[in-house]
Amino acid sequence: MSILDHMFNPVNIAIIGASNREGSLGRGLAENVLESFRGRVYLVNKRGGELHGLKMYREISEIPDQIDLALIIVPAESVPETIEQLGEKKTKIAVVYSGGFREAGRKDLEERLIDTAKRYGIRILGPNCVGFIDSWTPINATFISRERQGIPEKGFISIISQSGALGSLFLDLLSYRGIGLRRFVSIGNASDIDLSEMLEYLSHDPYTRVLGIYVESIGEGRRLVDIIRMISKYKSVVILRGGRSVRGSRAAQSHVGALASPGKLFDDVLRFSGVYIADSLRSFIASLEAYERLDRSDYKKDVVIVTNTGGLGVLTVDSLEDKMISLKEFDEIEMKILREIIPSYMAVGNPIDLSGDAPTKRFKDVIENLLKITRPRLLVIINQPQTYAMDTENFISFINELRNKDPNTNMILLISGGEFAIEFARKIRGLGIAVAEDPEELSSMIQALSITPIHGEPMISRLENRREKGIKIIEKALKEGRHILYEHETKELLNIYDIDTPKRFFAKDLEDIEKSKDLLRYPVVIKIVSPEIIHKSDVGGISLNIRNYEELLESYRRMLDKLGKYRIEGVLIEEMIEESLDVFV
Amino acid sequence: MSILDHMFNPVNIAIIGASNREGSLGRGLAENVLESFRGRVYLVNKRGGELHGLKMYREISEIPDQIDLALIIVPAESVPETIEQLGEKKTKIAVVYSGGFREAGRKDLEERLIDTAKRYGIRILGPNCVGFIDSWTPINATFISRERQGIPEKGFISIISQSGALGSLFLDLLSYRGIGLRRFVSIGNASDIDLSEMLEYLSHDPYTRVLGIYVESIGEGRRLVDIIRMISKYKSVVILRGGRSVRGSRAAQSHVGALASPGKLFDDVLRFSGVYIADSLRSFIASLEAYERLDRSDYKKDVVIVTNTGGLGVLTVDSLEDKMISLKEFDEIEMKILREIIPSYMAVGNPIDLSGDAPTKRFKDVIENLLKITRPRLLVIINQPQTYAMDTENFISFINELRNKDPNTNMILLISGGEFAIEFARKIRGLGIAVAEDPEELSSMIQALSITPIHGEPMISRLENRREKGIKIIEKALKEGRHILYEHETKELLNIYDIDTPKRFFAKDLEDIEKSKDLLRYPVVIKIVSPEIIHKSDVGGISLNIRNYEELLESYRRMLDKLGKYRIEGVLIEEMIEESLDVFV
Repeated sequence: MSILDHMFNPVNIAIIGASNREGSLGRGLAENVLESFRGRVYLVNKRGGELHGLKMYREISEIPDQIDLALIIVPAESVPETIEQLGEKKTKIAVVYSGGFREAGRKDLEERLIDTAKRYGIRILGPNCVGFIDSWTPINATFISRERQGIPEKGFISIISQSGALGSLFLDLLSYRGIGLRRFVSIGNASDIDLSEMLEYLSHDPYTRVLGIYVESIGEGRRLVDIIRMISKYKSVVILRGGRSVRGSRAAQSHVGALASPGKLFDDVLRFSGVYIADSLRSFIASLEAYERLDRSDYKKDVVIVTNTGGLGVLTVDSLEDKMISLKEFDEIEMKILREIIPSYMAVGNPIDLSGDAPTKRFKDVIENLLKITRPRLLVIINQPQTYAMDTENFISFINELRNKDPNTNMILLISGGEFAIEFARKIRGLGIAVAEDPEELSSMIQALSITPIHGEPMISRLENRREKGIKIIEKALKEGRHILYEHETKELLNIYDIDTPKRFFAKDLEDIEKSKDLLRYPVVIKIVSPEIIHKSDVGGISLNIRNYEELLESYRRMLDKLGKYRIEGVLIEEMIEESLDVFV
Repeated sequence: MSILDHMFNPVNIAIIGASNREGSLGRGLAENVLESFRGRVYLVNKRGGELHGLKMYREISEIPDQIDLALIIVPAESVPETIEQLGEKKTKIAVVYSGGFREAGRKDLEERLIDTAKRYGIRILGPNCVGFIDSWTPINATFISRERQGIPEKGFISIISQSGALGSLFLDLLSYRGIGLRRFVSIGNASDIDLSEMLEYLSHDPYTRVLGIYVESIGEGRRLVDIIRMISKYKSVVILRGGRSVRGSRAAQSHVGALASPGKLFDDVLRFSGVYIADSLRSFIASLEAYERLDRSDYKKDVVIVTNTGGLGVLTVDSLEDKMISLKEFDEIEMKILREIIPSYMAVGNPIDLSGDAPTKRFKDVIENLLKITRPRLLVIINQPQTYAMDTENFISFINELRNKDPNTNMILLISGGEFAIEFARKIRGLGIAVAEDPEELSSMIQALSITPIHGEPMISRLENRREKGIKIIEKALKEGRHILYEHETKELLNIYDIDTPKRFFAKDLEDIEKSKDLLRYPVVIKIVSPEIIHKSDVGGISLNIRNYEELLESYRRMLDKLGKYRIEGVLIEEMIEESLDVFV
């Protein structure tokens, strides 16, 4: 059991600074907790009184119980003292909502808070945060106003945000789109529990299938990257980066209170490990919706679009091409059959343009027949319901049938417009179908879903296909007449079974090496990969202790010069560890 | 009076193919016209009957009147015959809604339609279109379903769309944002009245202040570019291009029915003439809103952001920087004063982060004081109204005051989120303030507003400042001790007073010449610009009949070689006309 379990599944809760004053944060927080949490809640307010019939204690010491989780929303100056009192109550975790610490130039106060907490073994979320939510426990330990914004229903997405207000906005936008939430955490100043720790904790959470992270600045760069890389093997991860521009990073520094902002390198490293870096607020939310609704797979070359709005089809194709996503090209036989299905006066192509007078029946005829002759990885259906011809209720039934008949049909709908269209989209989403609201959202969704990790395989299948993949590596060697695995194969094999090996990179040529430039932590080792060289060190096929990229290039050149007579597959570059690893299979 | 006046301000209207069948396009169209148009409307349906108490004539010939404007919504095959009958009724313009012509492989039928219309001098809008709207006449001559989508109120934006269904979507989205409409035209196959003619007509319309154009393919490339260039001097123009990608252009071809799609060149030429090329559906709509609400000006270096959501401020700065928009840098004095205004625990910078607990009062204090010490060209206010502290009604009053106190304060609000935020945004928009819904919309808006034409001046002011500018050119010469204007100055002077001169381009160096590469129609002339050379041709400072870009570079090189001893300002490159123009002032 992790200590953080006391946060998401507390035995009981005390709210220090609860209030009955209308419009106060202390009241907002207390009401959210009382309405969501089924366990025991104690309220503390130094003036006493009651809230909704529940007594407010004047002092923490008056509470006739130990306290598992404490929520602190009192002025910054009195937080350390409050922590002290909680220490007597054996509190495991305290969430500090109050601002007025490091971000306001009071680093000293923040240090005092943390020192006190450490003395009593209390873990701290915050300070200067909006709190957290667990939709499954359930517990809403935020002061977010539910009258002013939506909070998602129970679901499988977890959100961690470095910005509290932006975090609330994510919840509002997800809720508006009908997307469910597992956990939400505003980490605030993160002076104790930080992004990495929270991520690591959520990586073990089976209900968190998708992770959305808003990150502005990181003090824990390398560790964070490693954790995200690891998680992205098991879960879909979307990152929205604040402060990726020069000026934006300055703004982020004054916002979160110091620490350098991660640069482009950070993005590139993550991108390479199967994480989707959203390029806008909207693509962040849209890609979360996509991950929640569809499996990850390389859809990029195999999209079929069916539309009742030719112009929107055209704009969509433009937007897809911007992101290097291409449409399925129908072959001759498919074209021939499509011509028979599609009304003679309509042009046949991809997008398939059903034209503005298409009722549901035309969608149904064309799509059902299409799926008989080909199974595109992804079907995009553009339905502008504003047209007279569109019988929307029938259409919703049709989509439902399509979904139920074959759950493997991957589809995304594109629906744009005002109130009527929004309501229509809401109903479609109610079926569990992802809906993009404009062509750019759609292309972000497809891009996110198609993200694959370093070796070009879709991440989601990595664990499921362990055995299969292990066999493939061995079969490949056997087929090539080898009874020996190349080193990178061996390590991949170990990796498949989660046996850790140092970070490594197989490069077949100079171009590959260039790609590795910023991905490795030096010093590194470079090793030749050749079926004709088994004992590398004997022939000069290993070069150790390479300290930088220039040395790497030089070593590579020298190695090629020396070993040119052998058949060379490439080189293996890997980060150095204490002892070099050599495995024979 | 233009013939097209009969379309937007008809004496009377006949609807051929009107229907009382529920859900039919003929009924939709008739109801829209009857509910909007105050003049006389005749309905024609070959089966007779009545609609809302209005008789439906069986034959056009039965109508006891001449017919000014005819709306035709009968099967394609019977359209030519219908036109014939309208000829007898002295009809000026017919709108043909029916599809089944060129776009369906029936070029022959379309030609027959046009031939017949020409014989009777009837102008045709369409075929295969959604119709048109004039919100001022008023007349809604579309079959757009008002139950399923919004149609904007009276306003100053005109929309021309090559795609009917997409055109309807634009109306829905504009209406949803509370933006007003002057005219809407779906040009369909444009086999008679084409994009250029409609644009030229709207260029003379004083109520059309902003023009939004959706264009997929143009057969009239050069003419269209010239007209758009001309209009962009007087009005704000936004173009959304469908088919700018390779695959998208293929889709566009099958959608609109043939004709090549304009390439990147088309965009670049237009961009250079002060037109905003929207890069997405959303930026199209957002920039229309911006143009409708704010004056054009170069805001790009002088934006101040005030926000109650630090994270959203950071994302906004990132998005602005993507589009090369930078924030105002406060100078030392401004910083000093700002520090006095802004609560001590808040960091001072741009964005000014008021933090999530800011009520209206804090916005008011900071903004009012800010405007006392500096007047940024553009003030961006980010207000996430979801926070407990935000007293939204007070905020709306404050924005209204701010607006009324000084109408020259240019501001855009950024408001994101679900229902509560949408409702809040609606109220702000009701004050006539532009609202962006996400950081990317905001940066598109600023980018659009900052677009300036070839000589770096904001377009909107071109006419108003005629005299002032003429004086400036002359003063500049006098100040430099010249009594002679350079040729490009002379022509600019003529241009300011709308005296047409051939397209020309002043290049101070090779880099400038490279920019001109695709902008000029060859042959061109190149002329040296130097205060020491008046009679250019005497010294070899003019080179005529340059047929392509390579020859242009060669001539430029030779000219520099030969005239290196003079002080050279640059060269003037211009398209050749019949007779070379030489003006002495």
